[in-house]
Amino acid sequence: MREVGVGIAGFGTVGGGVLSILRSHAREIEARLGARITVRRVAVRDPAKERMIDVDPALLTTRWQDLLDDPQVAVVVELLGGTSEAYDLVMGALDRGKHVVTANKALLATRGDDIFRRAQEKGVDVYYEAAVCGGVPVIRTLREALASDRIQALYGIVNGTTNYILTAMADKGEPLPVALAEAQRLGYAEADPTLDVSGGDAAQKLCVLAQLAFGASLKPDDVLTEGILGLLPEDFAWAKEFGYALKLLAVARRCGPHGGKGGDLIEARVHPTLIPAGSMLAGVRGAMNAVMLRSEALGPSMLFGQGAGAMPTGSAVVSDIIDLTRNILSGSPGRVPLPPVQPLVRLHPHDEIRTSYYLRFSVKDVPGVLARIAQTLAGRHISIAAVQQREHGEEGGPVPLVIVTHQAREADLHSAIREIDRYQSTVAPTRLIRIEAP
Amino acid sequence: MREVGVGIAGFGTVGGGVLSILRSHAREIEARLGARITVRRVAVRDPAKERMIDVDPALLTTRWQDLLDDPQVAVVVELLGGTSEAYDLVMGALDRGKHVVTANKALLATRGDDIFRRAQEKGVDVYYEAAVCGGVPVIRTLREALASDRIQALYGIVNGTTNYILTAMADKGEPLPVALAEAQRLGYAEADPTLDVSGGDAAQKLCVLAQLAFGASLKPDDVLTEGILGLLPEDFAWAKEFGYALKLLAVARRCGPHGGKGGDLIEARVHPTLIPAGSMLAGVRGAMNAVMLRSEALGPSMLFGQGAGAMPTGSAVVSDIIDLTRNILSGSPGRVPLPPVQPLVRLHPHDEIRTSYYLRFSVKDVPGVLARIAQTLAGRHISIAAVQQREHGEEGGPVPLVIVTHQAREADLHSAIREIDRYQSTVAPTRLIRIEAP
Repeated sequence: MREVGVGIAGFGTVGGGVLSILRSHAREIEARLGARITVRRVAVRDPAKERMIDVDPALLTTRWQDLLDDPQVAVVVELLGGTSEAYDLVMGALDRGKHVVTANKALLATRGDDIFRRAQEKGVDVYYEAAVCGGVPVIRTLREALASDRIQALYGIVNGTTNYILTAMADKGEPLPVALAEAQRLGYAEADPTLDVSGGDAAQKLCVLAQLAFGASLKPDDVLTEGILGLLPEDFAWAKEFGYALKLLAVARRCGPHGGKGGDLIEARVHPTLIPAGSMLAGVRGAMNAVMLRSEALGPSMLFGQGAGAMPTGSAVVSDIIDLTRNILSGSPGRVPLPPVQPLVRLHPHDEIRTSYYLRFSVKDVPGVLARIAQTLAGRHISIAAVQQREHGEEGGPVPLVIVTHQAREADLHSAIREIDRYQSTVAPTRLIRIEAP
Repeated sequence: MREVGVGIAGFGTVGGGVLSILRSHAREIEARLGARITVRRVAVRDPAKERMIDVDPALLTTRWQDLLDDPQVAVVVELLGGTSEAYDLVMGALDRGKHVVTANKALLATRGDDIFRRAQEKGVDVYYEAAVCGGVPVIRTLREALASDRIQALYGIVNGTTNYILTAMADKGEPLPVALAEAQRLGYAEADPTLDVSGGDAAQKLCVLAQLAFGASLKPDDVLTEGILGLLPEDFAWAKEFGYALKLLAVARRCGPHGGKGGDLIEARVHPTLIPAGSMLAGVRGAMNAVMLRSEALGPSMLFGQGAGAMPTGSAVVSDIIDLTRNILSGSPGRVPLPPVQPLVRLHPHDEIRTSYYLRFSVKDVPGVLARIAQTLAGRHISIAAVQQREHGEEGGPVPLVIVTHQAREADLHSAIREIDRYQSTVAPTRLIRIEAP
């Protein structure tokens, strides 16, 4: 039976999942492939460390460079994390004609262009299903299943940590710090949750998806990114009252042509978003992930599943290894070329984004406040779709006032809020949450 | 630029969608492939018929045999429907070394084994993404994305017509004939809706999915199949009261080993099913389709989208053509072998299925009825999870009595119902609906 040799660099949670799946499903995988996948080398930081899964000590090395030098390693699996060593490993592997599987969204979001170009030059493949939404086959679907179609928009719940926290806040009315602490206790959030709660992780994933969907070469800094830290229990209560769920959404969509040469403007943003309570994405609860696509021929479609964890992520890595093995066995590397960057695709300026908005004002309960706010909004062509003001204890005290707008321009909204927040009658900064109907 | 020639046999709704997508996305497809897909022949019944999309008359033929004889046709797209001519066309194409794309679930469900064997012998590919759930990439996901994993169960809403009808009944409290007539008026149901409402269409699709997921060689007759015709508005009202949604589900799952040689027993059934109202599948509304998978490594995952229509189905056909073209260009036909039938996989006898049940009894409101029913159930090891009896007008008149059971054996349920339906106090046959938590 033919054998394809694999080297694994980095042996944490996902690495353990990969090895465990390769072992426990070896019989099925061999039957499907007519070939054997053999792990030749495993690069670790500390070979003495206890692990969940036993590895033959003869396979272990502390130098990932050993994977590059081993002629029996045809596929390098990069699970080092970070963007520095991982970059050197991936480029080194490509230079030696080895195929690469990586789960490293940060690497692809920041240096993907380089990596894809080098892979193309060397005639080898880079697969990265595990980089976005763990085992959910969103990369494969964008690369292959929708190759016939033209994607108009994608809306993703791509960060399980924040979705877990937001689900808890919605269900239990908890403030964010309580929900976050619970998520940390249960292992859904890291000790330092910054990358997740800031939206940074979702922005990296959005860059990877937007390249596949639109040929857009975006860096995380290009993405309008707002995290979840400003959300209060009352936002969830208001959302419910207006018939919405509140999710951290990664959104990328075509929003018009530009330049008259067939180029497209692409919006790219990550922020808390109100979506209709009955929509499919609103049903995505806890640490689950989902990506809703809207494309010309297929219309709306959605992929849903576990976005993290040793086994889900490991299963995506192993599927990539199997796919590469098929390419190797059939002599067809480069069968599905990496997504070409479309030079005519440009980022739509964030100020020009048009959407509906939920605005929560904290104002003193004095006559004329609503009229003045309404006038300020109207002066910037922002029209009001719904208003709610709750009764409150004492006259003259602070009250929450919520306004839902029709579609308006982002820059106009910010300018109006700046003005309203300067009023004497405004007692706390206005909270803005965008509204979408994915 | 290299060209790959395609012949299309059958030019109805889907054929129109295929041609329209090949034309409107020609530029993107060429950029992705580095090759051109050219339609060489289109076989139609009536060349004089008006069509939504213009076809060069020189391409038209009334004999599908012409596609087989044309050496420039490398890929035959079978859209004839039925299982007789379509079978001859597909086998003829395979015999001539041509690759096949088909959207014909009936053909695959009844004669798939033959077709797959012939394709393997001839070293050519059969792709059939459009056969199940239209443009939703469930076939590709089972064949490729989950190649690393072991699927335990699949639960599908795979028939848009019945899901449209059930959604209308749930939302509006309509009786089935009203919802069906509306579905026919809007084009969601055919003039003769038998294949859909009987569950027959879903059973065919389940056979196709079960082969990919489990290597099971099932025929539609092997599937326990119950349609939706017996459902009443009150079933939806009760479902809501108990916290369930009511869907026509296609279910296939491993339910245990058999024979001690690594063989698996597989359940296969299509029937109205109560599922938790908050579950992802419960959110699949109208004519939409979805398949929920449960697999060892990935856990739960779901694919959702439009299961029918010219463009969604056409997009799946075109993605298959693109995939075949990639195989042709890279010289790798047979790269992903067709699913081998696992001879050790056996059908679990329907009588042995274990699930929970909703039972709606129509009984006279006389003393002792509930006690007697409870005793009959207990005598067959069926234990009661919940009971509800509604108050009614006159004493002694018929009342609905609903019992939800814990897990029990299908044969025991049927035997208990047969006995209860013979009681003097039972005024109408008992209605049984199975309960699942997909």
